[in-house]
Amino acid sequence: MITKNKIKQIKSLARKKHRDELRLFIVEGYKSIRELKNAGLGIEEIFVTNEAQKLDDLHPKTITAAEMKSISNLKTPPGYLAVVKMPEPQALPNEGLILALDNVQDPGNLGTIIRLADWFNVKNVVCSSATVDLFNPKCIQATMGSIARVHVHYTDLEDYLQKSDLPIMIATMSKTSVYDMSLPNNAILVMGSESHGISEELLNLGSAISIPQYSPENDKTESLNVATATGILLAEWRRSTGM
Amino acid sequence: MITKNKIKQIKSLARKKHRDELRLFIVEGYKSIRELKNAGLGIEEIFVTNEAQKLDDLHPKTITAAEMKSISNLKTPPGYLAVVKMPEPQALPNEGLILALDNVQDPGNLGTIIRLADWFNVKNVVCSSATVDLFNPKCIQATMGSIARVHVHYTDLEDYLQKSDLPIMIATMSKTSVYDMSLPNNAILVMGSESHGISEELLNLGSAISIPQYSPENDKTESLNVATATGILLAEWRRSTGM
Repeated sequence: MITKNKIKQIKSLARKKHRDELRLFIVEGYKSIRELKNAGLGIEEIFVTNEAQKLDDLHPKTITAAEMKSISNLKTPPGYLAVVKMPEPQALPNEGLILALDNVQDPGNLGTIIRLADWFNVKNVVCSSATVDLFNPKCIQATMGSIARVHVHYTDLEDYLQKSDLPIMIATMSKTSVYDMSLPNNAILVMGSESHGISEELLNLGSAISIPQYSPENDKTESLNVATATGILLAEWRRSTGM
Repeated sequence: MITKNKIKQIKSLARKKHRDELRLFIVEGYKSIRELKNAGLGIEEIFVTNEAQKLDDLHPKTITAAEMKSISNLKTPPGYLAVVKMPEPQALPNEGLILALDNVQDPGNLGTIIRLADWFNVKNVVCSSATVDLFNPKCIQATMGSIARVHVHYTDLEDYLQKSDLPIMIATMSKTSVYDMSLPNNAILVMGSESHGISEELLNLGSAISIPQYSPENDKTESLNVATATGILLAEWRRSTGM
């Protein structure tokens, strides 16, 4: 049993505005909920249907399939839905390897990038204000528990980069190969958006870095997907600095 | 104007069975059609709506928005739809760096992997028979023109690997770091499926290769996305062999 008011509140979390107001977001699916719980995020409430009973230790509320359908964001609700507290905001970072995202739009890409940051021990991802929302359900689905271990910040990226003392490397399609430079341990690596690359106002705030293309017809190949390019650059960073 | 029979034939191409029978597939959107055309694929027919007239040089047939809606696979048809001939099947490869995919299921991942192969000059991708179909519309959307430059084969992967004389490297979550081994110029790199990794019957057919994890809590991070992992391994291959 779930009240009409509760249904209304949970449904409102499909929108960023309401998520930000309440500082809550939705996670669906047994594995994702378990991951976030294990990673230490605060779970506000858990709802399960009669058929789904694997989260007994977390004291879920049992609701009907029809009730679940009314609060789920998915066409076929997996039967497990949790309302989760957003992590506390943290101060903007000024050391270590920092990843900066300039208007990445696809929630799946953002989720994959945060998992990559987690894998390569990048503790902070600084997003421009126009970057897709981390708590978008599709993004949450792609990050898994990584959002509990990586601090994701939203800010005026131009301002942040201008004020930072760290070396800034900007991923572009230039000829400045990542393999021809010495990568610093403390730095900001800036990745651009899927369709527009790096914003013009950021281009001069750092030095260019790129992944060489090996195809002989290299005027024909499209650019790499932003998540894939981020993975290749972070792997090379960790390999070459040994950190 | 488009006949009922033609509509029926084009709609049938949404299914793999009919694509394979007719050796035709669908591409939608101006940019994708232009890319495939430039890449040298045979275009059978092009349809555009009255509002969309940028492909004049390719002599498209103009149809109504309602007719376009009836043949399009997309909720919001972009107004450009081409019926394209599949590339001719090629003999299975036995030299160079070859990528093998064991049951990759997500069409977006397959598309991204083919773009990566193109970028890193990998001419052949050998897929297990249960790998998602290359000509799935979502996959085509993600490959762009790369499918004209990379040969994608479907076969019994176990049989192919067993018969091959090339060194076989199998991407796993083992501790055998890609950075601790010497990578051969001619080899088969095998990547597993999103949810099940490498099939058990393939595991003993080659040696393990993995991407080291740098996170201190490395029991918690999920595995990398298969397309991202492929990108990191191919980049390291080209960097370390210099080819």
